[in-house]
Amino acid sequence: MAEQKKMVEAITPMEEDFAKWYTDIVKKAELMDYTSVRGCMVIQPYGWAIWENIQRILDARFKELGHENVSMPMFIPESLLNKEKDHVQGFAPEVAWVTMGGSEKLPERLCVRPTSETLFCDYYAKVIHSWRDLPMLYNQWCSVVRWEKTTRPFLRSVEFHWQEGHTMHETAEEAKAETEQMLNVYADFCENELAIPVIKGRKTDKEKFAGAEATYTIEAMMHDGKALQSGTSHYFGDGFARAFDITFAGRDNSLCHPFQTSWGMSTRIIGGIIMTHGDDNGLVLPPAVAPVQVIILPIAQHKPGVLDKAYELRDLLKKRFRVRVDDSDQTPGWKFAQYEMKGVPLRLEIGPKDMEKNQCVLVRRSDREKIFVPLDELEQAVEAQLEEVRRGIYEKALARRESMTYTALNMEELKDLADNRPGFIKAMWCGDPACEEKLKEAAGVSSRCMPFEQEHLSGTCVCCGKPAQSMVYWGKAY
Amino acid sequence: MAEQKKMVEAITPMEEDFAKWYTDIVKKAELMDYTSVRGCMVIQPYGWAIWENIQRILDARFKELGHENVSMPMFIPESLLNKEKDHVQGFAPEVAWVTMGGSEKLPERLCVRPTSETLFCDYYAKVIHSWRDLPMLYNQWCSVVRWEKTTRPFLRSVEFHWQEGHTMHETAEEAKAETEQMLNVYADFCENELAIPVIKGRKTDKEKFAGAEATYTIEAMMHDGKALQSGTSHYFGDGFARAFDITFAGRDNSLCHPFQTSWGMSTRIIGGIIMTHGDDNGLVLPPAVAPVQVIILPIAQHKPGVLDKAYELRDLLKKRFRVRVDDSDQTPGWKFAQYEMKGVPLRLEIGPKDMEKNQCVLVRRSDREKIFVPLDELEQAVEAQLEEVRRGIYEKALARRESMTYTALNMEELKDLADNRPGFIKAMWCGDPACEEKLKEAAGVSSRCMPFEQEHLSGTCVCCGKPAQSMVYWGKAY
Repeated sequence: MAEQKKMVEAITPMEEDFAKWYTDIVKKAELMDYTSVRGCMVIQPYGWAIWENIQRILDARFKELGHENVSMPMFIPESLLNKEKDHVQGFAPEVAWVTMGGSEKLPERLCVRPTSETLFCDYYAKVIHSWRDLPMLYNQWCSVVRWEKTTRPFLRSVEFHWQEGHTMHETAEEAKAETEQMLNVYADFCENELAIPVIKGRKTDKEKFAGAEATYTIEAMMHDGKALQSGTSHYFGDGFARAFDITFAGRDNSLCHPFQTSWGMSTRIIGGIIMTHGDDNGLVLPPAVAPVQVIILPIAQHKPGVLDKAYELRDLLKKRFRVRVDDSDQTPGWKFAQYEMKGVPLRLEIGPKDMEKNQCVLVRRSDREKIFVPLDELEQAVEAQLEEVRRGIYEKALARRESMTYTALNMEELKDLADNRPGFIKAMWCGDPACEEKLKEAAGVSSRCMPFEQEHLSGTCVCCGKPAQSMVYWGKAY
Repeated sequence: MAEQKKMVEAITPMEEDFAKWYTDIVKKAELMDYTSVRGCMVIQPYGWAIWENIQRILDARFKELGHENVSMPMFIPESLLNKEKDHVQGFAPEVAWVTMGGSEKLPERLCVRPTSETLFCDYYAKVIHSWRDLPMLYNQWCSVVRWEKTTRPFLRSVEFHWQEGHTMHETAEEAKAETEQMLNVYADFCENELAIPVIKGRKTDKEKFAGAEATYTIEAMMHDGKALQSGTSHYFGDGFARAFDITFAGRDNSLCHPFQTSWGMSTRIIGGIIMTHGDDNGLVLPPAVAPVQVIILPIAQHKPGVLDKAYELRDLLKKRFRVRVDDSDQTPGWKFAQYEMKGVPLRLEIGPKDMEKNQCVLVRRSDREKIFVPLDELEQAVEAQLEEVRRGIYEKALARRESMTYTALNMEELKDLADNRPGFIKAMWCGDPACEEKLKEAAGVSSRCMPFEQEHLSGTCVCCGKPAQSMVYWGKAY
């Protein structure tokens, strides 16, 4: 077990330095590497395969709900970005500008898209004529660029990958229903596929998307008690439609503006997976998106029949699961540590003694539980154990979130919690941005969301004591 | 049939103006739309669905051959682009430069990747240490930017989508074998999936990729006799490896440079599909990549049972084929023209009379052949007819290419052909770039490739009369 020990020691323990633990994992699990471009990363095969699995599942759900994929340009002319004033104020400070094409200075600067509302609106203005053209339900998978000063792998990078849905509707009600529907798609995906419990809610005006009327969010709690905004869905009303002069002939032939939404989930969620499920032995991947769901390790593989049996089990399982055999000449100890680091949900050990008993051993990555499985029940056992991994890591994350969620009834309590207890703080708020600002200054917390599931903690704002409008989750965030 | 006539008239006939016929199709089949960014397009849902099908098929083939997908940054620092001198000379004149991040001038300009050899090499230099690390077989799906002066939808745009494979090998032989293998993957994909016959060959030094030792190509002939370079595969030797100081410890522990390849296919191939198979009624799509393979049109759909039968057939077929029912209130004539325009390979008509006979009608888009099919043989008939469409359009394209391929034994013949006969000209060449240049000036043709299947037409160069080295395909190209 010397090798295993060595590999495990190579990660900084979470308790010692959470930030270092995180970067150790992204590097040692071979998810990404740094590049010569500040804030831009190579997403390595193992990391990209996780993203491909996320894409496949989400893309199928979007399409089931009638969305179609398109591709918009990566450049936005400056004049186009400037059309909606809240939007440009929010994004202009953090865009990359293309000013030269070849050796010629461009007559107008182009920004590399930080998000594509303006491009979609430019297109909608051309193609929407009648109520019969609505709804338009588009999505695109692409990368976008935001000139961030401080960057961290997956969590905040200059270039990142995402999907951005953009839809146009005949009525405000339909657009609002779409906004909510897509938030639910994200929440369901996080909880049931990624095993990440999330809180659904609405952002305060201060925290909403530049140009949106309302922003809805799902917020997840990381191991260190910080929040990760894991997906957002925006309702725009007809603000962009008016700015971009998008009109259609309504059912009564009157000229109308359509109502708009957009919604996105990004590679940031890979950071969320790491910081929700990972431990001091490395990554722990939810089975739905794990590039390898079952790693088969032949024990005493030089003994007759062992390797053949391993390949036979792989061929049996590969019809339904993503499975691999490691038949390299590394020691079992090295392999155990390696696949724990990579977060493979199930390890399957098969050796001569197991073969005698016509069984194998399954070990769950999440809790190292060993299960002896008769070979003729293997398929069902793998399916059941993958589900058990998912359930187990979800329950664990949920219990942690609950144990790290506190209630504050006044400023003193809130400051004390913010200073001493990592996690979420539930507190009442009057709705005044000035109080929000004060909480930030005095306690270093920001509003995460006004959850859909409201609780009545008291009748007054935690900050100013005036009548409360809603309960808010407060916390520190990535 | 008035509506059909009207729709058909809306496309410029190919004979009248080929370029206009082409842009009419891309617009009316709703493949793309123009944007406010010069040379950049919106790829609309129908066009993007074709690309998604191309991606799915190619991606599976790449992965079967052991390639892994990764993601590199979209930006290349100027100093990195400058590292390989042939490469930078080829690409620097046509790149877009990012010079500002937010309101700050960048200390070093970044170009938006025109291709990613330099980024992959920068990464390889960090991760390749030993012969055990080789081969590295990477691919990425992304968009790239080349600041083209004149652009045309799909064929030449400022931003375009592609995949770029980048591999590193222990020996030159292995790298050469990879270059050839991937060219064969492209050729097989074009011929068997897209039904586009291609000529495989090697580019002359003048036409090869900037920085490559050898470029291999597949060349297809379009309706108008012009060539479309449809996929390329490059062998780099160890040139980039030396420029980027990529080394590994060989089997004998000596310090070695690895050998490199890259290969790409782009959205340009969608232009190739249009110009190979399209006709004056619109697009003709190869079944393998058609977003809709079978369009079901209920005839006299107000009659009892017709719509239900149409849905029943859809549900039967949808397990194996991409199929849709058009139950809108448009006339049959409009629908016929609409799906011909969109190039749907098979139209399935079902009406009350067909139902009485327990049959339906299949109509092939490619030759309008009608087949009456008993309903209990429908699945097999659809499969057979889709294959017949594929075979039919391939044969037609091949026959056209053969009838438009000529032989020239001297300059006079070559000039006469180039002036009067659109198509390919086979002619012998001495290997001197000066002769290649002369053919360009005198006859307006460029070398398409030195085909792998050589023919001995004569012993002397068509231009200078000196001993010939190889037979070359010459022509005009997109």
